[in-house]
Amino acid sequence: MYFLGLDVGTSVVKGAIFTEKGQPVALNRLEYQLNYPHPGWIEIDPDLVWDKVKKLISELVGSSNVKPAEIVSICPSVLGEAIVPINKKGKPLYNFIEGWDGRGNYYEEEISFLEEKIGRYKIYDISGVTLSSLASIHKILWLIKHKPEIYEKTFKFLFMEDFIIAKLIGEYFVNYSLACRSMLFDRVEKKWSEEILGEAALSPDLFSLPVPSGTIVGSVAEFVASELGLSEKTKVVTGGHDQCCAALGVGIISEGPAFNGMGTVEVIAGVTERPRLEHHLSDSNIANYCHVLKDKYLLLGVNPTFGMALKWFKDVFVKGRNSIENREGRGIYEIIIEEAEQSSPGAKGLFFLPHLQGTFSGSFQALNPNSRAAFIGLRSFHKIGDMVRAILEGVCFETRNLIIEMEKVLEITDLRVSGGPTNSDLWMKIKADISQKKLLVPEKSEAGLIGTLILSTIATGVYKDTEEAILSIFKVKRSITPEEKIGVFYTSRFNIFKKIYPTLFEIYEQMGSLNNR
Amino acid sequence: MYFLGLDVGTSVVKGAIFTEKGQPVALNRLEYQLNYPHPGWIEIDPDLVWDKVKKLISELVGSSNVKPAEIVSICPSVLGEAIVPINKKGKPLYNFIEGWDGRGNYYEEEISFLEEKIGRYKIYDISGVTLSSLASIHKILWLIKHKPEIYEKTFKFLFMEDFIIAKLIGEYFVNYSLACRSMLFDRVEKKWSEEILGEAALSPDLFSLPVPSGTIVGSVAEFVASELGLSEKTKVVTGGHDQCCAALGVGIISEGPAFNGMGTVEVIAGVTERPRLEHHLSDSNIANYCHVLKDKYLLLGVNPTFGMALKWFKDVFVKGRNSIENREGRGIYEIIIEEAEQSSPGAKGLFFLPHLQGTFSGSFQALNPNSRAAFIGLRSFHKIGDMVRAILEGVCFETRNLIIEMEKVLEITDLRVSGGPTNSDLWMKIKADISQKKLLVPEKSEAGLIGTLILSTIATGVYKDTEEAILSIFKVKRSITPEEKIGVFYTSRFNIFKKIYPTLFEIYEQMGSLNNR
Repeated sequence: MYFLGLDVGTSVVKGAIFTEKGQPVALNRLEYQLNYPHPGWIEIDPDLVWDKVKKLISELVGSSNVKPAEIVSICPSVLGEAIVPINKKGKPLYNFIEGWDGRGNYYEEEISFLEEKIGRYKIYDISGVTLSSLASIHKILWLIKHKPEIYEKTFKFLFMEDFIIAKLIGEYFVNYSLACRSMLFDRVEKKWSEEILGEAALSPDLFSLPVPSGTIVGSVAEFVASELGLSEKTKVVTGGHDQCCAALGVGIISEGPAFNGMGTVEVIAGVTERPRLEHHLSDSNIANYCHVLKDKYLLLGVNPTFGMALKWFKDVFVKGRNSIENREGRGIYEIIIEEAEQSSPGAKGLFFLPHLQGTFSGSFQALNPNSRAAFIGLRSFHKIGDMVRAILEGVCFETRNLIIEMEKVLEITDLRVSGGPTNSDLWMKIKADISQKKLLVPEKSEAGLIGTLILSTIATGVYKDTEEAILSIFKVKRSITPEEKIGVFYTSRFNIFKKIYPTLFEIYEQMGSLNNR
Repeated sequence: MYFLGLDVGTSVVKGAIFTEKGQPVALNRLEYQLNYPHPGWIEIDPDLVWDKVKKLISELVGSSNVKPAEIVSICPSVLGEAIVPINKKGKPLYNFIEGWDGRGNYYEEEISFLEEKIGRYKIYDISGVTLSSLASIHKILWLIKHKPEIYEKTFKFLFMEDFIIAKLIGEYFVNYSLACRSMLFDRVEKKWSEEILGEAALSPDLFSLPVPSGTIVGSVAEFVASELGLSEKTKVVTGGHDQCCAALGVGIISEGPAFNGMGTVEVIAGVTERPRLEHHLSDSNIANYCHVLKDKYLLLGVNPTFGMALKWFKDVFVKGRNSIENREGRGIYEIIIEEAEQSSPGAKGLFFLPHLQGTFSGSFQALNPNSRAAFIGLRSFHKIGDMVRAILEGVCFETRNLIIEMEKVLEITDLRVSGGPTNSDLWMKIKADISQKKLLVPEKSEAGLIGTLILSTIATGVYKDTEEAILSIFKVKRSITPEEKIGVFYTSRFNIFKKIYPTLFEIYEQMGSLNNR
């Protein structure tokens, strides 16, 4: 008995074939290029991504020595918000417009329209997502206005999941968690929101049928099965928004622990047992939408420059630096973190505010593209290791800021961490000490794929419920316990850190209003 | 007819033999090591520095083909504040304690004592120097308290000039400008201040006889002359504090133009026709003390991290970076400034506050060791060239800040620039455009040595007055005229820059009060 999981992200498609215990018998990833037709525009070619998915599945099946008929089901975890218009034949009429796409000055006009017509808090009450540029609704409104000839031919707008499911079975289904990311879905009633659709003058027929995650929606169509090396008996199970799948993959199924995914961007995700309507969540840009589990909600906060800050520093300051780059047998991140080990907690008085992409969460002016990053407290004795350490600490202070906001509705008992930074002992120690949360590193690193496995195994009756599935599949490799003493030290730093952004706010507003030549 | 000039600075001794027109027939420099017996302590070994001076003079005379008897006079320009106790035989009892020495938490106790006993403004009224840790008086009070066994044997405290003159002629003379740097001299009455000496319980006999700069105080003693290859006919002429000599060397003899010396530290120096008593000068840490010209005063402001900021950046971020370092035939500063040329005015919205060593001047909290440097406004697209450009602009914004304070008493018509940064066309253009002052680059780069030549030629009757001497010796090589349009652009940036320090002040105070591990 084997289960195929997919994880379609921005610029990379991952896949695995698992045993029901979570043992991967095949695991692979394929990268694909994004399109940037104009500065700030981000698109995904739907044919390209489907080609990559097909190639990945064929390769997984081919390399696994598993008979196609033994693959019980296939389940996708996908990136949120990306939307593509298709015609009646299922043919894409435009590229996917990606969530972080920033056309129209980050959908300024569409956001104003919705703010005025419905209101920020009402939108949050219904959809559970905050009125930021991310949501799919803005992309749809933009297409209607700027590409009317496309809208005219549009049969449906598909998210990444329904796009892939349609390719596999020829029908249109989307799970609740992903539907929520559009800002068109009613998280409480679990249907397309009449009120929002109405104000946006959109018909619910333009979208796939919303179903719970872990629903068997069909079997792989014959001609697709033969092309991919699958069996037509292989069932197709609805998956979830990638953050929800990853959270499920590390056992986030009830209030308490939180998933902490660390990549370019960092997310913190915990479960709430009911939809939380507190408007300070909207103010802090923390979403609360359908989880991939029945009647559970995911509380999701985003720190947009976690790994990105270190990557920026590496690209700008370390590349081409032979004395650093050429340390044998070590990756470049490992090497620059070695530099940080030469510094000491507090980075010798240096602070880094990691707002390289503005702000995206927090208690003060949560969503502010005018905010910028800063190194504060530089002295002549500061070296590269101090700057790296200030970055590692700075992004963790930002995480602490986010956790404080989330803990206004949900006490977080521990963080189940995932992603590249978990390979750094120093960074994880800093993270535990600053957040004063215990970190659990899962044995299996591909949390999103494991999430799809859990959905598949429950849908196909292997396990009777999530608890049983998680007990069989999820294991902790190691844990990092925060030190209380150094926690006190970091709290004194955090108390300064959290003042930096409000202090610079006015200056950043003025900088934002300058005409830069 | 030839004239020997010396310029004894921190860690380097320069010398030249000039014709009366300022043509150097020999020019040389010797570096020497400073001593750092404890962190923050800075000392100069008096025997070492005298050895270097002797070696330099011998080499200059030896390499010049000038007959010793043709060397009419010798005149020294020296660093300020450094003080050494000697016994009756002229033997040093301790090292010179250098001006920037920071023992006793930057002479906290001595400063409080003088503040309380005399008062900051009264001290400024008398001495023309501000109550900062620089002044020699603190070093003397520290020695009395912490090294009583040395004070007991002390015959005199010598500055660098009287130390060298005593070596040459066996008698003790110091010029007014240097005496002023001690904070013990009355700039108006031109004598050791009874009031300050009294409160500090010091006798005037502990110091050399103050005389005007350009005074012939004797001839080189026979045994010294033979050792150095000089003639015993060579006259010894009192020189001046190095900033005054350098200002004279670029023709700063009356109100209007200012000297702008750029090295690690930057100074701006203009002339006032009378002692200026405005207390805002004291608040802004701008000195106003005896110039090397009769009855003229030098208005001196300091920007402590001019070249230093770029040096720090180079050492931390560029060294060992082969792709940058290995551009053929170019110095490392030239190369990093090439990187800055890839950026654009305004450094793509990035600002650098250059307080790597705290603040030292300005309208707001002028003397503040708790202030620190910062990069403000970082975005993910910023590259190394943007950071270099932000540094070049940041130090020039700081200069503009200083000029604004100085112009409250003295309108500055142009800046006569000197030092390494004058070799960079980009940096000088930025400087002219930001300060909106015309920059004049002198033909002769060693302003301090030229200053001693002017003093020597007037003292020995070659020229009838300073005007005549300067007409013969000082020539402008090129000038940089500010562009008005880009000046408007920079003014909008400067209006933001000047808010950064006051905005961060409170955060820096809190950072200063942290116990850094």
